[in-house]
Amino acid sequence: MMEDADLQISGGRFSATYVISGSPAEAKQVAQAICVEQTVEFPEDLLPRAIREHVLGRIESLQESSPGRWQAVISFADETVGGLLPQLLNVLFGNVSLMPGIRLQEVALSEGVLRHFPGPRFGRTGLRALLGVEGRPILSTALKPMGMSSRQLARMAYAFAVGGVDMIKDDHGLADQPFAPWKERVALCAEAVREANARTGRRSIYMPNLTGPAPSLLDRAHEAQEAGAGGLLVSPGLVGWDTMRSLAADPDLSLPVMSHPAFLGSFVTRPESGASHLALFGQWMRLAGADAVIYPNYGGRFSFSRSECLEIVRGTELAMGHVLPALPAPGGGMRLDRVPELRATYGEQVILLIGGDLFRGGDLEASSRRFLDMLTR
Amino acid sequence: MMEDADLQISGGRFSATYVISGSPAEAKQVAQAICVEQTVEFPEDLLPRAIREHVLGRIESLQESSPGRWQAVISFADETVGGLLPQLLNVLFGNVSLMPGIRLQEVALSEGVLRHFPGPRFGRTGLRALLGVEGRPILSTALKPMGMSSRQLARMAYAFAVGGVDMIKDDHGLADQPFAPWKERVALCAEAVREANARTGRRSIYMPNLTGPAPSLLDRAHEAQEAGAGGLLVSPGLVGWDTMRSLAADPDLSLPVMSHPAFLGSFVTRPESGASHLALFGQWMRLAGADAVIYPNYGGRFSFSRSECLEIVRGTELAMGHVLPALPAPGGGMRLDRVPELRATYGEQVILLIGGDLFRGGDLEASSRRFLDMLTR
Repeated sequence: MMEDADLQISGGRFSATYVISGSPAEAKQVAQAICVEQTVEFPEDLLPRAIREHVLGRIESLQESSPGRWQAVISFADETVGGLLPQLLNVLFGNVSLMPGIRLQEVALSEGVLRHFPGPRFGRTGLRALLGVEGRPILSTALKPMGMSSRQLARMAYAFAVGGVDMIKDDHGLADQPFAPWKERVALCAEAVREANARTGRRSIYMPNLTGPAPSLLDRAHEAQEAGAGGLLVSPGLVGWDTMRSLAADPDLSLPVMSHPAFLGSFVTRPESGASHLALFGQWMRLAGADAVIYPNYGGRFSFSRSECLEIVRGTELAMGHVLPALPAPGGGMRLDRVPELRATYGEQVILLIGGDLFRGGDLEASSRRFLDMLTR
Repeated sequence: MMEDADLQISGGRFSATYVISGSPAEAKQVAQAICVEQTVEFPEDLLPRAIREHVLGRIESLQESSPGRWQAVISFADETVGGLLPQLLNVLFGNVSLMPGIRLQEVALSEGVLRHFPGPRFGRTGLRALLGVEGRPILSTALKPMGMSSRQLARMAYAFAVGGVDMIKDDHGLADQPFAPWKERVALCAEAVREANARTGRRSIYMPNLTGPAPSLLDRAHEAQEAGAGGLLVSPGLVGWDTMRSLAADPDLSLPVMSHPAFLGSFVTRPESGASHLALFGQWMRLAGADAVIYPNYGGRFSFSRSECLEIVRGTELAMGHVLPALPAPGGGMRLDRVPELRATYGEQVILLIGGDLFRGGDLEASSRRFLDMLTR
């Protein structure tokens, strides 16, 4: 037997709901395995008593929700997280990701954990105030295709902003390619949107995409802010969840963050494993500071269903202590002719992201105006 | 029609093999979609000619490998990557991750892409030289369970090192919890292994786990090196792929990197989507600088099959230009009584990672010695 541990434990606990597939005996066994894997990773019979009582995860409830599917609520001591987002994600889903037949459904965090995570800097209300947009969906588009020069992209940004698009982001594949190097692109596009705003009186923003390198990402965010960028596009699957959090929490930055789902699809491919749309695109994104959350809309080029999209919406707004709600930003092959339907589905609390379709006809300003008209009339 | 692009293109291209599920017509359509999604994300008919010719992905071949399964080799211009690892991962798998029925099987990189990625600092040969271990598998274990104090963990580290374990790593759940705060733990464990080495004459190393926060991760790595740590444990799924790469490439660090698979399981859950074990645990890990790659061994607590594990081994050693081979490190519920079988499966070019089972009996030094004896006799 190992020597006992002298633990200082607050008693604060947070929990996660996992959906487990299997027989009653399997469900019990898997729930117990989650308690072990996500914390001590150690033979239970060898654990010192204090660690077994306080550090090991605890099954709070285990109920059959449908034949062969079980909902397990498992709680963890606040101290297991140690104030770090990657470790919170690790406790929630680190080793579980490697075990088939377990899906992380929803997270219920304690104040002891949440206090380490400010969440979105602006949230829904703050982002609307920043953009000066009330009473309608927010309009967004992307600068593309890769291969255009910084000047060409800046001319597009100008046309979009003059036409009335509120959030003009880089396509998430624009990194630091020779076609449109990062620093040059950011300077020219930010300047173009500033000029457009001077003409229209609106407050459109340009949001450059931050890809790397990791050690200079925060510096690049500061460079972008100084150059006049109005927000940041970040793919946490590509650059890391804590990197996004650090951009949202940095005291010397004051830019909204829009998250992109690149590289994250495998988490939500199967209904019986991975993470739920609600947890991944709602809860995790907000914990990591996203003010706006891009995801592939139903009926576009990707595979999410309408109900999965609405689950994401719920995840962006459900109560999480002081963590502000984010705005859902469905995109991915959306067309102008779907705007009425999207509005019917999502109401006003949404960012409508239309990319390629605004390029049809060749007059970006005119198609942007048409986009805006559809939402203001 | 958009104005044309004035592209400077080297002509260098790299490629990836995707396995697509579906009918012949679907396979063709999906392969074409990959070409678009991973690069321009733009209606093909609106693309400027130069971009369609050079930036858009290109189907090099499309062949039915088994009924309803197609192998598509798709090539991309070197310039699409712009020298950044997250953007390379984005081109290979960013939006593809969100499309069901596509699996990234293998990557074939060009010299124009590879030159941006030094890869593992030590590789197989360098790591063996560092540890002074030839002609047998390398022994590894983990300091655990979470909840033990820094002093208790350091005593374990000492016992493991005296007993003959070569690589003594933190459990990947040890972050910066109050039980064993990062700085204190690293200092004490590094000191303990140094003392053990002074007694044994061996060159065992202590490898602390780096979790965050993102902006100070590189500083923490330097702190660890100064404190006498002999390597770093990194979970790229939790802290970001480019963060791991930056640790392996930093000119002021000289520590081997061991990667942990936490949070990455969803990529490999299904055979018809996600990424292959070979690409993820072999090729990507090496591009991101891992000298040693931990993965859940077959027959342990997780779900990888024996053939998937051998595919990982192949990924750690297949030719990738100057990028050195890494050592596979199967773990996850391994027991001492399986050592002969593991040796038969993996041969000598492996790191055997046994955690909890070394704690059975309560004498860590004795069980470590038994572990070493099994591999040297």
